[in-house]
Amino acid sequence: MDLNVDMGESFGRYKLGNDEEVMKYITSANVACGFHAGDPLVMYETVRLAKKYGVAVGAHTGLEDRRGFGRRRMDITPDELKSDTLYQLGALDAFLKFNGMAMQHVKPHGILYRMVSDDEKYAGAYLEAVKSFNPELFIMIPRGTLIWKLGTGMGLKMAAEILVDLSYDDDGNWVLERTKKARSPEEVAERAVMVAMKKQINTISGKLISAEADTICCHGDSPNAAEVVSKIREAFEKQGISLKRLDS
Amino acid sequence: MDLNVDMGESFGRYKLGNDEEVMKYITSANVACGFHAGDPLVMYETVRLAKKYGVAVGAHTGLEDRRGFGRRRMDITPDELKSDTLYQLGALDAFLKFNGMAMQHVKPHGILYRMVSDDEKYAGAYLEAVKSFNPELFIMIPRGTLIWKLGTGMGLKMAAEILVDLSYDDDGNWVLERTKKARSPEEVAERAVMVAMKKQINTISGKLISAEADTICCHGDSPNAAEVVSKIREAFEKQGISLKRLDS
Amino acid sequence: MDLNVDMGESFGRYKLGNDEEVMKYITSANVACGFHAGDPLVMYETVRLAKKYGVAVGAHTGLEDRRGFGRRRMDITPDELKSDTLYQLGALDAFLKFNGMAMQHVKPHGILYRMVSDDEKYAGAYLEAVKSFNPELFIMIPRGTLIWKLGTGMGLKMAAEILVDLSYDDDGNWVLERTKKARSPEEVAERAVMVAMKKQINTISGKLISAEADTICCHGDSPNAAEVVSKIREAFEKQGISLKRLDS
Amino acid sequence: MDLNVDMGESFGRYKLGNDEEVMKYITSANVACGFHAGDPLVMYETVRLAKKYGVAVGAHTGLEDRRGFGRRRMDITPDELKSDTLYQLGALDAFLKFNGMAMQHVKPHGILYRMVSDDEKYAGAYLEAVKSFNPELFIMIPRGTLIWKLGTGMGLKMAAEILVDLSYDDDGNWVLERTKKARSPEEVAERAVMVAMKKQINTISGKLISAEADTICCHGDSPNAAEVVSKIREAFEKQGISLKRLDS
Repeated sequence: MDLNVDMGESFGRYKLGNDEEVMKYITSANVACGFHAGDPLVMYETVRLAKKYGVAVGAHTGLEDRRGFGRRRMDITPDELKSDTLYQLGALDAFLKFNGMAMQHVKPHGILYRMVSDDEKYAGAYLEAVKSFNPELFIMIPRGTLIWKLGTGMGLKMAAEILVDLSYDDDGNWVLERTKKARSPEEVAERAVMVAMKKQINTISGKLISAEADTICCHGDSPNAAEVVSKIREAFEKQGISLKRLDS
Repeated sequence: MDLNVDMGESFGRYKLGNDEEVMKYITSANVACGFHAGDPLVMYETVRLAKKYGVAVGAHTGLEDRRGFGRRRMDITPDELKSDTLYQLGALDAFLKFNGMAMQHVKPHGILYRMVSDDEKYAGAYLEAVKSFNPELFIMIPRGTLIWKLGTGMGLKMAAEILVDLSYDDDGNWVLERTKKARSPEEVAERAVMVAMKKQINTISGKLISAEADTICCHGDSPNAAEVVSKIREAFEKQGISLKRLDS
Repeated sequence: MDLNVDMGESFGRYKLGNDEEVMKYITSANVACGFHAGDPLVMYETVRLAKKYGVAVGAHTGLEDRRGFGRRRMDITPDELKSDTLYQLGALDAFLKFNGMAMQHVKPHGILYRMVSDDEKYAGAYLEAVKSFNPELFIMIPRGTLIWKLGTGMGLKMAAEILVDLSYDDDGNWVLERTKKARSPEEVAERAVMVAMKKQINTISGKLISAEADTICCHGDSPNAAEVVSKIREAFEKQGISLKRLDS
Repeated sequence: MDLNVDMGESFGRYKLGNDEEVMKYITSANVACGFHAGDPLVMYETVRLAKKYGVAVGAHTGLEDRRGFGRRRMDITPDELKSDTLYQLGALDAFLKFNGMAMQHVKPHGILYRMVSDDEKYAGAYLEAVKSFNPELFIMIPRGTLIWKLGTGMGLKMAAEILVDLSYDDDGNWVLERTKKARSPEEVAERAVMVAMKKQINTISGKLISAEADTICCHGDSPNAAEVVSKIREAFEKQGISLKRLDS
């Protein structure tokens, strides 16, 4: 199982997340590319940090909306999405090149995660950008979504993702909050173990639904992110579940 | 001799330059990377246009200041310059990849052209970014500047540039104007021929100074850019001077 | 009848519209406030121009999206809309104060025009901002829209607007294009006269629908805006229809 | 003595400073206006908070550089500074109007504080903007600077300011750091008392220099800002020095 967290969300004077602490426990870092969060200097430092801890790096691409943190839907055109995605993939790649690293994956951020999951025109534009840039990239997205099916059909490497620190409704949709509430690290770790061992997750109504995952995600901007991921790692070790990068 | 022009300076609703018309006459396009001008969709279209006309593409990297068009000096740190340069190089590269093309060159835009020419800390940061990204890129810059010497010492490919549509003072410094005045196409073409054949250019005081060039530049945002470059091409053909890409 | 045009849409190096020429013929200028277009220096100059020609000034408030020119729907919250509207109203007011002028009106730009017309939560937030800032401002909006009714109920001064250079469908909705096509000035003038005299406008299907207006609008970023407004003025003079500011 | 702190420096998802806690102890709030920090929603909430605690509000105007937090010098023109200042003053004023409050003061932020202090063309542009907007505003700036003298000559209300949590050199210049170090609250309080009672402050070399103040400033983005201002208030009460708004 891979464990991915959003990293590099700081911006200039604004610090977000405790990246160095979190890096110690995770296997994949989704690095913001300067559209919804991050800036070039932050990207430079975040990639270096990932290298230091042997963490795989992916592009966390988002809408061009820093003020809204990429969480406000914008009616962009598919051509804008394709171009914006290429732009962000390339930008991050330069920092990987600088460090002699290769990009492992890509993941749409915030509302874009939902836009490409649900809407065929966005899914198609996103996949076209990724495929032309590097068809070997893993694309983190929930199994069964529209983009999952399209990408699989195009021969792309879809990595099934479960967001273990978010709430799911009974239909398997997660609930997006503007500000993350701190969830008990033990609770998140328990959910992660259940996903890894039972391939199931509980919903807001208390139901258990199917939850197959190649990678699980915790959010880096929650106040206790470092504690959460350390608890997950601890719980996994206890259960004998190994954490490893998608590209390993 | 190579003939380069700034391309892709439009931004959203704002159109700048007559890119398609100019592309027909030039050999190298300096494509804005979304910091001082341009945006991802504009980059996408500009690279496609360059491909259509067989024009070589380079990154026109600038300060992150759209309102000032990259012409207002900002006291950024060398680390910021290095990161911002990597970011822009990578971003443009994704569009070249999409089109199966390779980047030919890089050129600092506006006030950054002067900042890296004169200031050792900026020159070093810029060259480090370019070298780590791709040491085969040509770097367009006036011969004899501080960055020229540093880059040559590092084994990088410096391409001597003369700005034939700008004015020079007797010390060989060009004069930067916020809004370009239309210069007679014939006059610019004459200056270009003189640079190509005599390796000299006349200054605002009427003096002739030495002007060695691997590439000559005209500005794409001048109102008559297309006419200017067509006149240069015409004048070169008359004189039997061949125009060709740096990488040819 | 009032004749309003969008003004001050330039941004830094990017020029849009022929403001000085258009100012000569209109009675009200909708000045962009730096969110979808414009910048402080452009606002400064635009207000001065309006003063020179005795044109009334209003705030053309928009979504914070320069790249999309305020034409891409964004899922902002009503509180964001209220704050963003207050911010833009205040910003423009400072330039009016500088020139000893008073603001006449406010008008939502681009997709926001539609968002406040149709959506109660946005209409309410917009009206609250305007009312608290200055309850004497005219609000330009089509008669009969949801915001028209709400504003009228709150005692605000709603100014019925018809966009004479855009196309209407049979339900009275205009069609928004990203890039304006040049419409024949004579045709627009004819439509304007019909609105003024017959209170009707023809639709894309050729039908005539009711079109009551206190103010008619032409777009300043169309290539022939100056010619269009001069033709309207000419046609109005011929018909004895007087053009005058809303606050006259 | 007035005690002012920078407030409203958060931006979207990015939180900076503990504004509500700090508001309890201060008399004047310098509210960021969306150029170097802040955004309309943050301004809305910050002004409401100031009202709740009876704190006077001023405009903290800055360079348009969020990434650099207004701390990177930019070679803007005086006309740009004048326009940008008017814009920010007006924008903040709308939120004061909304709450039935009046603006008390204005203060240039970051590197702009130094640019207007030292450079006549910037000082003049800044004062012209403030005077035309509202000649009754207090302008917080160190006594004896160039802008102090110019403003006094123009009959404007200059409020002498000392930055008690920053270091001064022997010439009375403060040292600007990109990231604030936490200074002991007791030490800052002691410096504040010395300024209030002795009109002196100690420098990095240990010397005592003259330090006349109408207002003292602590920075809101230091990690322990709330503790610092509470200690100052406590120390002032112990010494019988009263804290009150400039406009009281």
